[in-house]
Amino acid sequence: MEKLPLVLDLTGTFVFALSGALAGVKRALDLFGVLVLSFAAANSGGIARDLLIGAVPPGAVDDWRYLGVSLFAGIITFYFSSLIVRMSNSVLLFDAAGLALFAVTGSSKALAHGLNPVMAIVLGMVTGIGGGMVRDVLLAEIPTVLRAELYAVAALAAAAIVVVGHMLQLPVAPVTAVALISCFSLRVMAIRHGWRLPVAKIRDQHDSGIAKEDSKDAERS
Amino acid sequence: MEKLPLVLDLTGTFVFALSGALAGVKRALDLFGVLVLSFAAANSGGIARDLLIGAVPPGAVDDWRYLGVSLFAGIITFYFSSLIVRMSNSVLLFDAAGLALFAVTGSSKALAHGLNPVMAIVLGMVTGIGGGMVRDVLLAEIPTVLRAELYAVAALAAAAIVVVGHMLQLPVAPVTAVALISCFSLRVMAIRHGWRLPVAKIRDQHDSGIAKEDSKDAERS
Amino acid sequence: MEKLPLVLDLTGTFVFALSGALAGVKRALDLFGVLVLSFAAANSGGIARDLLIGAVPPGAVDDWRYLGVSLFAGIITFYFSSLIVRMSNSVLLFDAAGLALFAVTGSSKALAHGLNPVMAIVLGMVTGIGGGMVRDVLLAEIPTVLRAELYAVAALAAAAIVVVGHMLQLPVAPVTAVALISCFSLRVMAIRHGWRLPVAKIRDQHDSGIAKEDSKDAERS
Repeated sequence: MEKLPLVLDLTGTFVFALSGALAGVKRALDLFGVLVLSFAAANSGGIARDLLIGAVPPGAVDDWRYLGVSLFAGIITFYFSSLIVRMSNSVLLFDAAGLALFAVTGSSKALAHGLNPVMAIVLGMVTGIGGGMVRDVLLAEIPTVLRAELYAVAALAAAAIVVVGHMLQLPVAPVTAVALISCFSLRVMAIRHGWRLPVAKIRDQHDSGIAKEDSKDAERS
Repeated sequence: MEKLPLVLDLTGTFVFALSGALAGVKRALDLFGVLVLSFAAANSGGIARDLLIGAVPPGAVDDWRYLGVSLFAGIITFYFSSLIVRMSNSVLLFDAAGLALFAVTGSSKALAHGLNPVMAIVLGMVTGIGGGMVRDVLLAEIPTVLRAELYAVAALAAAAIVVVGHMLQLPVAPVTAVALISCFSLRVMAIRHGWRLPVAKIRDQHDSGIAKEDSKDAERS
Repeated sequence: MEKLPLVLDLTGTFVFALSGALAGVKRALDLFGVLVLSFAAANSGGIARDLLIGAVPPGAVDDWRYLGVSLFAGIITFYFSSLIVRMSNSVLLFDAAGLALFAVTGSSKALAHGLNPVMAIVLGMVTGIGGGMVRDVLLAEIPTVLRAELYAVAALAAAAIVVVGHMLQLPVAPVTAVALISCFSLRVMAIRHGWRLPVAKIRDQHDSGIAKEDSKDAERS
């Protein structure tokens, strides 16, 4: 019973590390750069969560298996990148599974450290999306989660189900199952149907005003 | 007396969240991306300060009101962006007020956690400017505070007044008032008169040398 | 005996601060921006290490001398940038020395805080390369350490020697000397001979597949 979460957690780490390594291979990073992206994409979310709740050293720093799994995924991707590219549909499915899992374990750990329910949900989401954000920042890009379809919302849903279940003192196992399935299905359906959140529209007649604001905005930092 | 700082702190959070959300709307982020930028711009400075002084979980993670105010500002900006753009002069004034306030509360909190005076001043400044820096990094831009007119200096002034007042054991209320007013006026005058810090000039005859150095510098990382 | 490490540590800080300030001068940042880059390049690695092992406040925040040395290096670079550019070969040598030193002190501190050997090596490397990574992220660039020749590997070598020596309970002084010399020589020889890690090659026939994957990958964040 104790072993299952760790196995799932390391599975999520592995898949997220694949996505980080792939992004590095595409930018022609060297082997070390690819391995850094593997580790960062797989573990930054959990490290951020642990720093924010005061669980130091973070799990990914204290337990070398997270590093081991991340490096393993990075090395596979580096030497067999065309294989990983060909399997990219499966990678997306695994990624959705990893997201679900990280959101569930992240919000549970935040609750266990005494955070209030609202912030436990937020930290569950951060655990799920943080790795991808750091990966993109290291590549000098705007994190895709800030523009992509319902990625973060799926993580939020899973974290919210865990936290509400905890508050209602429902049994853990079925709540976890419902959370995992909700996040996974929501994410897969968002990919399949191209579901997205709305994007703000700034009307044309204001464009010059916005350009002016842009230079003014540069003054605030 | 206890309530006033929290009200001011949340006001600063609200205004900084507006600036983050506006930046997100301009890059056509989706609703979630805009909300992330709201929260990051408003709370990253305080979170960084709290992590560095060991106050975990950070206030912005422990108290859901910071999240609530940030999301509220983000949603307003998302749906009424042209209104916010039209009010941008007022936003800049509020932003100057937020900067003053964050610098004061940031340096006070650092002193209360036993930091030495010099670093308490630095952490006051970090509280004021950190949010804007994270906002810009997430947008893959060089933080404007590294190039803008006297933004960070105004925060430094407020933090220094707080710390010197503390060392001289002056009464807190008037010192706080002087610090807030100094930062706010310095910032507003810098905007109005375009005051800036000097920028290094590399003389022309060295340009080729610099280009060479550029490639060498790439080796150090 | 106690004084020597601090002197060496501050020397490393000084040289790393030079590299950060130079990068800022080249992007025409103002004086404040240059000083921020000085401090960030010199201290981010150590701060990250200290946050991750739970040593708060981090040394660079608790002891104002790290700030002082960083600002001193930044001001020199700002006002005498052409001098620093002309000395860039020496700067690279000092940088190699700083890298060696930070890797050694970083892994020692991680061991002293009870981290397991594998992660102590990783944190030694992080101490050495973290500053340069933050410097590049602030400049909206992909960190050069992810693409440069054997920079991180040299840091890893030094950290590994320290940790293995600790596990075998060898005397500290000679182990430290061997670690410093190995990292320094490896780094200098990598610069001189252009040694690099391999870069992944994605074969041509897969290019269209990769382009497709690129858009799919954008969905994972």
